[in-house]
Amino acid sequence: MSEARAPRGRRPGAPDTKAVILAAARERFATSGFARTSVRAIAADAGVDPALVHHYFGTKDDLFLAALELPVDPRKVLLPAIAGGPDGAAERMLGVFLSVWDEPEMQVRLVAVFRGILDADGERLLREGFLPVVLGPVGEALGIDRPELRMPLVASQMVGLIMLRYVVGVEPLASLSADDVVAIYAPTLQRYLTGDLP
Amino acid sequence: MSEARAPRGRRPGAPDTKAVILAAARERFATSGFARTSVRAIAADAGVDPALVHHYFGTKDDLFLAALELPVDPRKVLLPAIAGGPDGAAERMLGVFLSVWDEPEMQVRLVAVFRGILDADGERLLREGFLPVVLGPVGEALGIDRPELRMPLVASQMVGLIMLRYVVGVEPLASLSADDVVAIYAPTLQRYLTGDLP
Repeated sequence: MSEARAPRGRRPGAPDTKAVILAAARERFATSGFARTSVRAIAADAGVDPALVHHYFGTKDDLFLAALELPVDPRKVLLPAIAGGPDGAAERMLGVFLSVWDEPEMQVRLVAVFRGILDADGERLLREGFLPVVLGPVGEALGIDRPELRMPLVASQMVGLIMLRYVVGVEPLASLSADDVVAIYAPTLQRYLTGDLP
Repeated sequence: MSEARAPRGRRPGAPDTKAVILAAARERFATSGFARTSVRAIAADAGVDPALVHHYFGTKDDLFLAALELPVDPRKVLLPAIAGGPDGAAERMLGVFLSVWDEPEMQVRLVAVFRGILDADGERLLREGFLPVVLGPVGEALGIDRPELRMPLVASQMVGLIMLRYVVGVEPLASLSADDVVAIYAPTLQRYLTGDLP
């Protein structure tokens, strides 16, 4: 929280400005969708210069992820898994995914974010933001063909796995070891990434 | 429906009684979970005799499905797909699933039910009710080994497919032909039903 810092220096507005920008971004992304939202529009809503938005948050993609309040940047944690190329990518990506989601504190925060994405407003974020900002670049970095079909297929299995293992807690899925989850789901995901599809 | 029968006799209160029983059932299933809810407790909440509950709604499983307000009984529509045995069951079950979900009017109603299941209260229904009442019997009727693991795996893919194709509407999944959906997902589901698993 910025409460403690606010009284201290000569720019009492600064921490609040970041919060105002984030609130404006969340509102814009949710109502206009990711593609039709510009940094310029968010800056105008927040009453600041677009340069300040870039200064604080980087690119529009970065700002979007900041607005989602993810505890980790999925693009960064997935990088090592992607670096190895398409062969075995599903197994490596699942390993990264589980190392993050199976960590109890992280899991609480991720489930909260995921519930937010499932909200009526949030669905638009998933549809218009999360897939293009996170999964799109992953597909391209992997160098697979037809990433625009394959990555949503990957998402369709991961969303269901997240729902049952973490959000709803359906047994035995909730208690499976990470190794078993990888053994079960890696073949599915690898086929979606590189297998024959119609 | 028994509506046609209700006006016949001397009990004009009957339709309301059914609504009261259904409301009591929904409340009980949501707060106590499926397993710990008895028809007797629901009857007590509704202020009626348990025999009346059975008369109107059949078994506890039937009452549960009625409380979910599904536009179709999944056990009934899946019967023909199950009858053929495990070989090719995934393709047949997907065919049935798509014939129901791709029908526009049905889809609107099913998405509404699905959103309800995703609600905080609803998750408990999914965890403690939908899986044992619907997927459990399907697994047993198919005669597959380890249905208690395999059916939740099937559910983990179907929940994600429903989310992306119908609830969120992620392209190209939302516009794929039924044939393509079957070609993409049947191998995944067939492996979950009958393939080697850890």
